[in-house]
Amino acid sequence: MIKEHRPKARVAKGFRDIGPDEIRGTRRMLAKIQEVYEAYGFEPVEQPFVEYTEALGKFLPDQDRPNAGVFSFQDDDEQWLSLRYDLTAPLARFVAENQQKLPTPYRSYRQGWVFRNEKPGPGRFRQFMQFDADTVGSASPVADAEVCMMAADTMEALGLQRGQYVMKFNSRKLLTGFTETFQIPQDVELIWLRALDKLDRLGKEGVALLLGEGRKDESGDFTKGAGLSEKQIEASLSFATSLVLDARFVQDSKTGEEGLRDLEAMQGLFAAAGYGADRIRYDSSVVRGLEYYTGPVFECELLMETKDDEGHMVRFGSVGGGGRYDDLVARFTGQQVPATGFSIGVSRLYSALKLVGKAEESSILAPVVVLVMDKERQGDYWRMVQHLRQGGIRAEMYVGTAGMKAQMKYADKRGAPLVVIQGGDEKARGEVQIKDLRLGAELASHIASHEEYALKRLAQVSVPEADLVSAVKKALAQ
Amino acid sequence: MIKEHRPKARVAKGFRDIGPDEIRGTRRMLAKIQEVYEAYGFEPVEQPFVEYTEALGKFLPDQDRPNAGVFSFQDDDEQWLSLRYDLTAPLARFVAENQQKLPTPYRSYRQGWVFRNEKPGPGRFRQFMQFDADTVGSASPVADAEVCMMAADTMEALGLQRGQYVMKFNSRKLLTGFTETFQIPQDVELIWLRALDKLDRLGKEGVALLLGEGRKDESGDFTKGAGLSEKQIEASLSFATSLVLDARFVQDSKTGEEGLRDLEAMQGLFAAAGYGADRIRYDSSVVRGLEYYTGPVFECELLMETKDDEGHMVRFGSVGGGGRYDDLVARFTGQQVPATGFSIGVSRLYSALKLVGKAEESSILAPVVVLVMDKERQGDYWRMVQHLRQGGIRAEMYVGTAGMKAQMKYADKRGAPLVVIQGGDEKARGEVQIKDLRLGAELASHIASHEEYALKRLAQVSVPEADLVSAVKKALAQ
Repeated sequence: MIKEHRPKARVAKGFRDIGPDEIRGTRRMLAKIQEVYEAYGFEPVEQPFVEYTEALGKFLPDQDRPNAGVFSFQDDDEQWLSLRYDLTAPLARFVAENQQKLPTPYRSYRQGWVFRNEKPGPGRFRQFMQFDADTVGSASPVADAEVCMMAADTMEALGLQRGQYVMKFNSRKLLTGFTETFQIPQDVELIWLRALDKLDRLGKEGVALLLGEGRKDESGDFTKGAGLSEKQIEASLSFATSLVLDARFVQDSKTGEEGLRDLEAMQGLFAAAGYGADRIRYDSSVVRGLEYYTGPVFECELLMETKDDEGHMVRFGSVGGGGRYDDLVARFTGQQVPATGFSIGVSRLYSALKLVGKAEESSILAPVVVLVMDKERQGDYWRMVQHLRQGGIRAEMYVGTAGMKAQMKYADKRGAPLVVIQGGDEKARGEVQIKDLRLGAELASHIASHEEYALKRLAQVSVPEADLVSAVKKALAQ
Repeated sequence: MIKEHRPKARVAKGFRDIGPDEIRGTRRMLAKIQEVYEAYGFEPVEQPFVEYTEALGKFLPDQDRPNAGVFSFQDDDEQWLSLRYDLTAPLARFVAENQQKLPTPYRSYRQGWVFRNEKPGPGRFRQFMQFDADTVGSASPVADAEVCMMAADTMEALGLQRGQYVMKFNSRKLLTGFTETFQIPQDVELIWLRALDKLDRLGKEGVALLLGEGRKDESGDFTKGAGLSEKQIEASLSFATSLVLDARFVQDSKTGEEGLRDLEAMQGLFAAAGYGADRIRYDSSVVRGLEYYTGPVFECELLMETKDDEGHMVRFGSVGGGGRYDDLVARFTGQQVPATGFSIGVSRLYSALKLVGKAEESSILAPVVVLVMDKERQGDYWRMVQHLRQGGIRAEMYVGTAGMKAQMKYADKRGAPLVVIQGGDEKARGEVQIKDLRLGAELASHIASHEEYALKRLAQVSVPEADLVSAVKKALAQ
């Protein structure tokens, strides 16, 4: 089977392997999110990874990047299939297909990998995990508010403190309301939105330039502006920096007024439920790139600081977002089905939890390794391992074929806290040796020569074989 | 966004959506398997869903079915990518790529969805989950034996009794040993193997015909036989029905003798570790379809009975299998890296556990639903839900926009055990009503008319609002 041509062993471009710490840490994180969502009465559901391409549609953000897209392939019967690029489009298909069987509203959650056929970059992969919750079949802003409160509760369940996170909300209708009220021409709406999105980075002056004539950046590149009037620019800036809902910004727009009413209803519920502005607050800068949003939009921002790619301290930023998408099910059925949801970027959230020491990835200890000193006695060593496991200790027997030195190296590489050794002499005395590799490593750092180390027996105890389990427990507890 | 052309809402052919019971049941099942594998000292690792096609190679069973295959697509840079069809080929790539960093032997486990571009059938999907454990870098039969014992322990951890499962093992080398010793011509080896595989169904006489001249089945179709001699047929049948390892079957073959030694070493360890033949035993009929196996092969068979597609009672059968694959890493590196592993078919195992009542899928109760009697008072209802949740009760407020009747229907469809109601009158009295839907449904089945049902108040209690949580707890406990 060893062929002449040997393929190169390499992970595919933009994909990655995941190791034990992240798997265990993510597993615990997902379980906690599940717990909160379950308590709220959301039910798990899963759609497959593959859908008919036409069922998914194409609702990706960053429509302006040409290579943004999906992985697609043709089936035997010529139909096009795609890997899901998010968990919302498949849910819309599922609801449209099963509407009669589902309660209304239908509240569900799901976690899973999604795929983007995009140019990979640092920390930007073509496969990543999302954790979504959605309420389909309710037009009430209460459904939007619930999702926001559940997201806030989730952050706290994961160990984040108040002040480390904030759920920010806005409404697409409010943005439309402003552009209608202040007559922002439709063809510059996108430039307008993007300029406001840069307030954090460029400040009011920079954004004012982008809204007006245009702006020259540090490198000398000129970006053409939206060409708005003084009055429009001034209003845009106060709108985008306003900390409270202000009816004047949308007063001439029916859509704007609807948006305002929705957000006021949400605020009413937040107040009644005791969620202050430190946890959930209106933020006019929240836009969300996805074009399918139709009403309230939300974003969960983490406020702790971290270093960006250039070493500057920045806020960690968004770990999830969502909003109302009233038209996605109607794509299939023709009937409008109001829906709202929230999606967590799982690996981003995991990175954030690691940053603040809440990832708990190392709570599982590496196993105790029982060495094989005599191949004829593997059955005996195996029984030691069985006893250790029955005693609740993670343990393994060395299952390779190498000698003592390689076995010690193996135990070391495994990060084993202890090894158990029973050679002929120990066997004759009815004893086992327990060697503490943690202590050994520490001692070794203070000891000059290998010989001297070999003489030191501090990291090693001999105990009667019958006391193996209790002695290992004692040693592990040290 | 509502387009003229409306895509049909349908799940892609051969794929399926998964509901709450199976998700929760599978989640618990996976956690138990993880627990056993962790106790054994195996470490989690995950490879991506997408690999370079040439890195995966093509090691699928059923090579004779023309449409058996993988889902593949071309990347921007013309390279071919494929969805993984199992978890072994990606692991081999991972080990070849990261060998220096990994301990030897490297013992790992992983769970995940795999994809087969095959014709779907009843219970046969194009996306299914596997749970694998592998030991890479040990040529010792101890590594094979460990995997078998771990699989047996796993079945018991999942609640199966002894006698409900058995781990069966064999060796590819033993099969080769027999064909070498009894000079079975290479061009009929496959017919020989398949004929023996049918012993269960056709009995000795039927298989003898297939090994000799050929056999006419009930429909009159004639299958050409392997054309073996009387002596070869007789030996084949005793070999295939032998319950013990017998050196005579492989006496003239070096490979056969190696196979025998491996299996004897495994048996020695099973005996030392206390695994009797009721849990793990030699079975000459275990073959395993995958062509990459090179030594011991194993299969986990569930022995409880179930109905097959035609309504006959049959043994449940295989829920997993594996074996030694010494050449998979060498595909990349040219250096032989001995490896062995075991793979569980997750949804098949889940079906089996359901069959014997060990799936535990319904341990999570549907939520208590607080109805919205007065839209102005949603904040009050929300606080009730908060109190219930703080009391550890799964609870939700109705978040839709419909009236009382639709809300009751919703609660019913959700399977809610209780609903909480507070209209104006109850509010004025400082009370809440708790309505038991389980009891209500039971009563309703004995009551003739809707009016009569409305008069019955047995399933309904009023309690002071302050006692909500304790009263709900009491009602749930009934």
